[in-house]
Amino acid sequence: MEDKIIMAHGSGGSATGELIDNIFDREFTNETLDAMEDSAVVEGSGRIAMTTDSFVVTPAEFKGGDIGRLCVCGTVNDLLMRGATPKYLTCGFILEEGLSIALLKRVVHSMAQTAKEAGVKIVAGDTKVVNGSGELYINTAGVGFVSDDTDISAVNAEVGDAIIVSGNMGDHHAAILSERMCIDTDICSDNAPLVDIVKNLLGSGVEVHTLRDITRGGLATVLKELSEQSKKTFTIDENRVPVTKKVADFAGLLGLDPLYMGNEGKLVAIVKGSDANKALDIIKNSKYGENAAIIGKVAGNSTGRLIEVTDLGGERELDVLQGEGLPRIC
Amino acid sequence: MEDKIIMAHGSGGSATGELIDNIFDREFTNETLDAMEDSAVVEGSGRIAMTTDSFVVTPAEFKGGDIGRLCVCGTVNDLLMRGATPKYLTCGFILEEGLSIALLKRVVHSMAQTAKEAGVKIVAGDTKVVNGSGELYINTAGVGFVSDDTDISAVNAEVGDAIIVSGNMGDHHAAILSERMCIDTDICSDNAPLVDIVKNLLGSGVEVHTLRDITRGGLATVLKELSEQSKKTFTIDENRVPVTKKVADFAGLLGLDPLYMGNEGKLVAIVKGSDANKALDIIKNSKYGENAAIIGKVAGNSTGRLIEVTDLGGERELDVLQGEGLPRIC
Repeated sequence: MEDKIIMAHGSGGSATGELIDNIFDREFTNETLDAMEDSAVVEGSGRIAMTTDSFVVTPAEFKGGDIGRLCVCGTVNDLLMRGATPKYLTCGFILEEGLSIALLKRVVHSMAQTAKEAGVKIVAGDTKVVNGSGELYINTAGVGFVSDDTDISAVNAEVGDAIIVSGNMGDHHAAILSERMCIDTDICSDNAPLVDIVKNLLGSGVEVHTLRDITRGGLATVLKELSEQSKKTFTIDENRVPVTKKVADFAGLLGLDPLYMGNEGKLVAIVKGSDANKALDIIKNSKYGENAAIIGKVAGNSTGRLIEVTDLGGERELDVLQGEGLPRIC
Repeated sequence: MEDKIIMAHGSGGSATGELIDNIFDREFTNETLDAMEDSAVVEGSGRIAMTTDSFVVTPAEFKGGDIGRLCVCGTVNDLLMRGATPKYLTCGFILEEGLSIALLKRVVHSMAQTAKEAGVKIVAGDTKVVNGSGELYINTAGVGFVSDDTDISAVNAEVGDAIIVSGNMGDHHAAILSERMCIDTDICSDNAPLVDIVKNLLGSGVEVHTLRDITRGGLATVLKELSEQSKKTFTIDENRVPVTKKVADFAGLLGLDPLYMGNEGKLVAIVKGSDANKALDIIKNSKYGENAAIIGKVAGNSTGRLIEVTDLGGERELDVLQGEGLPRIC
C-alpha cells in the first residue's frame, strides 16, 4: 500500500520529527537549517527585499514542472522584481491527510533542485497536517539583498519607456488547464527562476525602471496595474505579444485570451526608450529569455490606462482580469 | 445571507483586488505594504533572523485568542528565541471556499492589533482560495535583527545552568481542546508575544544561553530536544513546573500530562546557574512572565537526556511526545 500522510505527522512529536528528518532535511540540508533552531540567523545587508507567496496549484505535478519548482520560482522572481539578489527562503508545508508521501518526496526534491538553480538557500521550514483529501499547499517567503544604487519600482515608468516581455505568454496557464481537462497536448509550463535575465539586465548599464513577473491575471492585468501605479498610459501592439501557435490554438479553442493567461517564468521590463534594443538583446541572450520581445511603450500621463493597438490599427482599452480567471493556477 | 469566500476571490483579478483592498490593506496599512510591489524593500542589518510557521488551528477562534493573534505571536516568538528583535512579517492566507468573511475580518483585525503590540510591521502578503469547507490557514514568516554580541542557541546550555519557564503550562492546549469538546471552562489560551520578557532578559546582563518557546509537543518535548542539541542531561522537578489548578484538573480528567501539552506564549530560558534568581525576577516583572519558575538544571554531559525528579524523589526519563498529540493546535 502506498504510504500516506496521517494526522500524527502533524502533532509536533516523533512522527513529525521523522517526516522532517526523512524528507525535508535530506533534500534541503545546509548548516543553517540543520541547526534546527526556532529561527535561522544569517548574514544580512543594508537593504533587504522580503516577499511571500502561497502555492495551491492543482494538480501538484504538471507538464514542465510541479508545485515545488513553482514555489521556489515564484518567490525568487518576486525578489528579483525589485532588483534584489535572492538569498534565503523559508517554506511552510500544509499537508492534507492522505497525501502521497512519494509525491511529497518528488516535490521536495524539485524544490531543492530549483533552489540550487536559483542560487538560494532554504533556511527555515514548518510543517502542518490538516484534514482533507490529500492535497498539498506550500508557502514560501524569501529574503534578498538590494544594493544601495538599485531603484526598481512599479512607480518608476516614464513617458517614452519601452515595454518588453521576456517570452511567450500563457504556457503555464495552458499546461495546467490541459492537465485538468485531460486534453492531450505537449504544452509545458514555463515555471522558471529569472535570475539570469535580471542579473544580466541590471549589470548591463541599461536604465531599468520597472520589473514585474507576469503571473495570475496575465500580462494585461499586470500592465494595467503598473499603469495605475505609475500614473501613465501604456500602449501595446497586439501583433508583438509573443504567443506560440500551440498556445494560441489552445486559447482559441477554449475562448481564452492569452493576454489574461497566467505565466510562471516571464517578466515585463520597462526600460528607458533609447535602451530598448540593448535590453532586448540582453534578455534574449539570457537563460529563459530567448523569446523576448518589445511589445509597446509608455505613451503618456494619465490615471493609468492600458491600450492595445489591434491588427487593423484600432484600439481597445484593457482592464485587469475580472473574477472569472482560472483558479488554483499557482 | 452571510458573505462567504468564493473561488473568484482567488483568481488574481478584480475580485482578489477587492478582497485585498477591503480586508487586508485596511488593517495592515503601512507605507511598505501599500506600495503593492512584488516584494517589500526595507532597511536591513548586519545579521538577520528568519523564521516561518503555518497556522491551521481549529477552531479559528477560541477563548483568549484566535488564529490571527496566534500566527503573529508564533512568528515573533520564534525570532525572539534567537535573541533577535522582531521587525517585519509576511503573511500568506489560504482561504477555503465558504469561509465567513466576517470571521476573516475579525482575524485580520486581531493580526493587526497583535503586530502593533509586538512592534512588528506586516510588509508583504499573499492570498489564495481553495476548495474546501470554509477553513482558514495562515502562514507567517518573519525577519528580525540580531546584534553582533548576541549568541542564543540550542547548543549553548552548560552544566550548572538553570532551567526557567516563563509561566503556566498547558493553557493553550486545554483552551483548544475544551472548545472542540464543547466543555464549558474559562481556561484561556496563553497566546502572547514574548517581546518584553526577552528584551528585559537580554538587557539585564544575565548570561542567557538558550531560549525556546514551548509550543506543539509541550515542555518535555522541547527540553528533550534541547538536551540532545546541547548534548547534556537536564533534570526537572515535577513539583516546580507551574500548572494552574484548572488546567491540572482538566488534564487529569482527560488523562493528559501537562508536560506534553502545547502553549503559545511561554518560553524556556536556560541561563548561567549563578544568574538564575536574577533572571527569574526579571521574567516575573515582565509582561506575560508573572508565573515564571525555576524548574530544573543542566546536570551533566550525555547524548541528551531529560530526567524528571518525581514527588517521592524517584526519577523518570522523559522522551519527546509520541505521535498521539492533539493535532491542529496551532
